[in-house]
Amino acid sequence: MPKTENQLLVIFGASGDLTARKLVPALYKLYKDDHLPEHFVVLGVARSFMTDEQFRNRVALESKYLDDSEAFIEAFSEKLFYEDLHKKYDVSYRELNERIQNLNTVYQCNNNFIFYLSTPPSLFEAIAKNLTAEGLNDERLGWKRLIVEKPFGYSLDTAKALNEGLHRYFKESQIYRIDHYLGKETVQNILVTRFANSVFEPLWNRDYIDHIEITNAESGGVESRGGYYDKSGALRDMFQSHLLQLVALIVMEPPLSADPEEIRNEKLKALKSLRMMTDPEVLERDTIRGQYLSSMIDGERVNGYREEEDVDPDSITETYAAVKFFVDNWRWADVPFYVRTAKRMPTKVTEVVIHFKSPHHQIFKNSNINKDNKLIIRIQPDEGILLKFGVKVPGQGFKVERGNLDFYYSGLGDSHIMEAYERLLLDAMQGDATLYARADEVEAAWRFTDPILNYWKSPKAKVYGYSAGVWGPEHANELIEGTHEWRNPGRNLADDPGYCVIDC
Amino acid sequence: MPKTENQLLVIFGASGDLTARKLVPALYKLYKDDHLPEHFVVLGVARSFMTDEQFRNRVALESKYLDDSEAFIEAFSEKLFYEDLHKKYDVSYRELNERIQNLNTVYQCNNNFIFYLSTPPSLFEAIAKNLTAEGLNDERLGWKRLIVEKPFGYSLDTAKALNEGLHRYFKESQIYRIDHYLGKETVQNILVTRFANSVFEPLWNRDYIDHIEITNAESGGVESRGGYYDKSGALRDMFQSHLLQLVALIVMEPPLSADPEEIRNEKLKALKSLRMMTDPEVLERDTIRGQYLSSMIDGERVNGYREEEDVDPDSITETYAAVKFFVDNWRWADVPFYVRTAKRMPTKVTEVVIHFKSPHHQIFKNSNINKDNKLIIRIQPDEGILLKFGVKVPGQGFKVERGNLDFYYSGLGDSHIMEAYERLLLDAMQGDATLYARADEVEAAWRFTDPILNYWKSPKAKVYGYSAGVWGPEHANELIEGTHEWRNPGRNLADDPGYCVIDC
Repeated sequence: MPKTENQLLVIFGASGDLTARKLVPALYKLYKDDHLPEHFVVLGVARSFMTDEQFRNRVALESKYLDDSEAFIEAFSEKLFYEDLHKKYDVSYRELNERIQNLNTVYQCNNNFIFYLSTPPSLFEAIAKNLTAEGLNDERLGWKRLIVEKPFGYSLDTAKALNEGLHRYFKESQIYRIDHYLGKETVQNILVTRFANSVFEPLWNRDYIDHIEITNAESGGVESRGGYYDKSGALRDMFQSHLLQLVALIVMEPPLSADPEEIRNEKLKALKSLRMMTDPEVLERDTIRGQYLSSMIDGERVNGYREEEDVDPDSITETYAAVKFFVDNWRWADVPFYVRTAKRMPTKVTEVVIHFKSPHHQIFKNSNINKDNKLIIRIQPDEGILLKFGVKVPGQGFKVERGNLDFYYSGLGDSHIMEAYERLLLDAMQGDATLYARADEVEAAWRFTDPILNYWKSPKAKVYGYSAGVWGPEHANELIEGTHEWRNPGRNLADDPGYCVIDC
Repeated sequence: MPKTENQLLVIFGASGDLTARKLVPALYKLYKDDHLPEHFVVLGVARSFMTDEQFRNRVALESKYLDDSEAFIEAFSEKLFYEDLHKKYDVSYRELNERIQNLNTVYQCNNNFIFYLSTPPSLFEAIAKNLTAEGLNDERLGWKRLIVEKPFGYSLDTAKALNEGLHRYFKESQIYRIDHYLGKETVQNILVTRFANSVFEPLWNRDYIDHIEITNAESGGVESRGGYYDKSGALRDMFQSHLLQLVALIVMEPPLSADPEEIRNEKLKALKSLRMMTDPEVLERDTIRGQYLSSMIDGERVNGYREEEDVDPDSITETYAAVKFFVDNWRWADVPFYVRTAKRMPTKVTEVVIHFKSPHHQIFKNSNINKDNKLIIRIQPDEGILLKFGVKVPGQGFKVERGNLDFYYSGLGDSHIMEAYERLLLDAMQGDATLYARADEVEAAWRFTDPILNYWKSPKAKVYGYSAGVWGPEHANELIEGTHEWRNPGRNLADDPGYCVIDC
């Protein structure tokens, strides 16, 4: 176990939802699992005025912890403090610095400070600047780290500006860009599956792989996030960040070692190898966007996207995005990647499907495309890995049917699987940046995404409607053309919905 | 479904155990599953005198079928007839031929006859000769087939003599040498696993496979078969026949097609590629035999092998045999094969373990030999396939532990898995020889086995004792030397007894 040094965690935007819903519960679990250092305090910061006590009540632990003793919860609660920034910036930050120094002295935090910016990105640079004005980026006495939440930019230019703004005050090695997808065990396990086994990597290339499919489906709509979502859309919200990170882990070459920089170097190289889509014909053919329509679900009418709260009634923002692309390197030449993300799908699921080529020579006559080997890496839910392979049908001759070689995380039994935030916070507290996105990675992902977003601004680019509860616009079947078909997964990994077209 | 022509099945040795215990129940199942042709009768033949009725009673169906209606069982029973051979050979066979012709006419068997020789091998040639004298090998009016039971020879010379004896009267294409191991679904599935999938075959060679292990363990002793067994031993009883057939299926190159002759051609080539062990030093180092000793099991004393009924008290016949060998061809150069078969083992199990090499480059530090990938093909019991692979231990960093990707035949649900005899009989009735051993295969297997048997005749060759319920003589750990260890399997496929040495 790496050592977690004494430290002070400052959360900006502490009055927000994330702090109460994710960050404080994650810290509580770390506390309960004895992962917090001996000397550790949290200072919540926001504009509104609150006492420490009010803050402690506001982020009160959820009822699921109530089987812990009151004294135990209380001891954790006493690590939480609050400071408001309601005055003018320079005054506020001076007072904030005083409070930090005071807590640091009283609670022996060794001048190690993490600043968690749970605020709109538009404030990142200003906060970094103000912290710097108070000398809070200075690492001479103890380390200083900055965790920032996505969205990390709105385009390549805005992401670059954001990075430049932060780099004026903090070094890249001090900056932790959180992508909670990378905190998922199943995502990290992609690296272990590939590089701790000798049976997968020899097959992990164009010689054996026919195509790769990634599906990220939400069953819900935009819910209360219409205002944010309408300015963002599926491509910015999921594809540029989480899904391209997944792509990078699947595409990357073996790193020299498990060192964070080595892994991030290879991920960067992977993202840079994605073939840029700039030709409008390619963009029209290989990208599809859609919006969910008003539909009946279980006899009840649900809103179409354009009817949702805070959504422009003429919006062309996509709630469905599917992109086919290629990877221009030695390993992946000519292997198509199909990536889609959408809301109002039949089920909530994220999975990667590695479709292997057919056996070179068909000895047994009755095989067909659906019998080809597939490795399904289930990110969520029903986390696991499933290899679809051909097995002999009992009886005479050699008829082949599909069998499943499967592994479920649930079978690991008593292992406690950390929640993404718990894991990521602990990593940052220990200075391990493996699971945080580096500036150049984020920019490379934007560089690939930008031309699609730009094309979608044009009136030529169609927006297809689709009913809630189907696998997107019918037109998406043309994207994954030829002998391929979308695998439309079920709730459970072993569900075999077949390769049906939409509405089957 | 291939067509099963009308035919008459003649069973020689019909008063014996096999007919009542295996053959008639297998025929009954074929009857029940509607696999028998419209016109089909069975004629049991043996020396003792019996009426048809007495024969029907003798082979009376086991109680497990008694939930079928009496009329249904009766209709099957009426297909069974009996003829004795108590007179002088020429007279007996003339009468037998008359009976066959008569049944053939009455029951419209189209002159298609199968002769199943469930007799000692010493009678094979004489029966073939007598059948020929009566013209019963003549295929002008209908086909004639001969099924023979193992042991098929006692050595290369005796096997050759047996083949030559049969070939004097029957063509090779008429002869079906039954090896009930080849009738097992799990054994046949080795071909499907290898050649109907694209993910296994690329790994199926010296580049990716470190070594291969085959274990065939019986928990029982020789039981009532001491007399037979003492003249045979583990190497003749299991290794030369069943286990070398398994080896052939694992070692063989992809056949041109699933045609029986193509598959048997490749199996023959595989058996011919086994490196002959003729050097006494190699034989001493790479073969081990043992005998089980008198032991206590669950507080009760069980006999040692030399104390068993009908066993020579000075016997040097092996009840344990382990052989390490190499395969001299392009695919398998330098890959050791470890094959063992024994009685009085901790559990009854047959399995093949493909041990893959370690990943070329260790990125994650804590891996070790036991984390290497292994494909376990379980022949029996708990039939299935299990791929041991490395999975990330939930939590920080990249610790790797073993996970199981597994497939169980039991999960196939309602498929009726045919018993080996049922399957093999139906194949012979349809003229499909895929799962029957050809003369040249049998001889190639003997050619490899003979030098070991000859070496074991010498007083130099040691016989190691081992207690009942352990994994053979301790000395066997030296056979599988270096970084390898025997995998000592449990009753169930997913049992993980580790790679412990004996008595662990």
